[in-house]
Amino acid sequence: MKKFKNPTACVIIIGNEILSGRTLDTNKQYLCKELTLNGIEVIEARVIKDDKKEIINTVNEVRKKYNYVFTTGGIGPTHDDITSISIAEAFKVKLVKNKEALKILKKFYNLKNETLNKARQKMALIPKGAELLHNPVTKAAGFRIKNVYVMAGIPNIMIAMFKKVIKKIKRGIPEISKTILINYPESYIAEDLALIQKKFSEIEIGSYPFINGKKKGVNIVLRSKNLKQINNVEKEIKKIIKSL
Amino acid sequence: MKKFKNPTACVIIIGNEILSGRTLDTNKQYLCKELTLNGIEVIEARVIKDDKKEIINTVNEVRKKYNYVFTTGGIGPTHDDITSISIAEAFKVKLVKNKEALKILKKFYNLKNETLNKARQKMALIPKGAELLHNPVTKAAGFRIKNVYVMAGIPNIMIAMFKKVIKKIKRGIPEISKTILINYPESYIAEDLALIQKKFSEIEIGSYPFINGKKKGVNIVLRSKNLKQINNVEKEIKKIIKSL
Repeated sequence: MKKFKNPTACVIIIGNEILSGRTLDTNKQYLCKELTLNGIEVIEARVIKDDKKEIINTVNEVRKKYNYVFTTGGIGPTHDDITSISIAEAFKVKLVKNKEALKILKKFYNLKNETLNKARQKMALIPKGAELLHNPVTKAAGFRIKNVYVMAGIPNIMIAMFKKVIKKIKRGIPEISKTILINYPESYIAEDLALIQKKFSEIEIGSYPFINGKKKGVNIVLRSKNLKQINNVEKEIKKIIKSL
Repeated sequence: MKKFKNPTACVIIIGNEILSGRTLDTNKQYLCKELTLNGIEVIEARVIKDDKKEIINTVNEVRKKYNYVFTTGGIGPTHDDITSISIAEAFKVKLVKNKEALKILKKFYNLKNETLNKARQKMALIPKGAELLHNPVTKAAGFRIKNVYVMAGIPNIMIAMFKKVIKKIKRGIPEISKTILINYPESYIAEDLALIQKKFSEIEIGSYPFINGKKKGVNIVLRSKNLKQINNVEKEIKKIIKSL
């Protein structure tokens, strides 16, 4: 039987203030978690600067390597929002006033009795040929061009965009994961664990040690599409724990 | 006067469970913040899998681009800890039993009346020619090879290692940053802000919008080594706020 391969993805977080440590990045974890739950394997995540060259080079590198690329950040109305123009350049297409995006913004600001000033119009500039990703919160759209999904940086807007995207794209078979907590340092079980990993090569066995005050322990995380094998591995690990 | 350039850095977080979204990565923000405070500019951060090829390729790419590379994760005693062997291969050196590292571990386990089993001995395997980074918490050392600093993934161990490293390496001139909170959507100020950015090109003006319930606002972050110029920009921005 040919093994079905889950789609792969790369998450790109764009923003200087993530790299300065000023802002805690929560988008990366959200996207990694949701993609994993939908059977899309996140192979890597990157955090890069609001810098045209960086954005172009990174996007052009990863869009060839993975099935999907998800970016967040840099699509607002201010001078430091340069993601859209960078993506257009990465794909060698023009950044054009998107009629649909403009219409949505006009309607939104009309209702609020506000003018669609130049800065707001900037949010309707979308790479030519891109499909809009609707933003139910503040209306300024994200977009998809080929396999690259360009989303907002504000978490609740990004999440609203992503929830629509994930329904439409090809997903994989989610892996089952099981976590076994062991209240011993991982060096107590490392050798046995290596033997189990050898025996059950199909299961990904991860060992995640932690220190909680003076207490040391480890979470063993089993991942696979095969529940029966996961249960078998669990049994073997529980045998080890009993023998400690 | 020639402009002094701050050193640059890349942070690499190694770990499957960060990419699955299971574990919240706090190491990245800690490192980004501390490096920035010490005048070291983090140009990018990456999260990659516990995968030999990924680690080798990533490290070999970024160590040529930046002054410093900091990695976290994958140096423990279990089968999925493959950072040390991968770094050795990246530098084309052997992974050898480091006498100093072994001595430290022996002493530690002797005191606890425990044996230095094979798994524990694995933590003394260090790339040839590397310098140890001491671990005051669980004794298993990290290491530095050329400009690459390989640290533990457990946050308090990583922090203990990093605190020693940062004292010893060449740091830069920290930038001054000032945050101005504006309780209006950023589209209200975007045009004026662009003009100010043009006038004060030396200052990095970042605009970070947020939504808090129904309230929209924006944090303007000014960054520069020049406090006087930051104050001038602040004055101009406060003028805009008054006019809103």
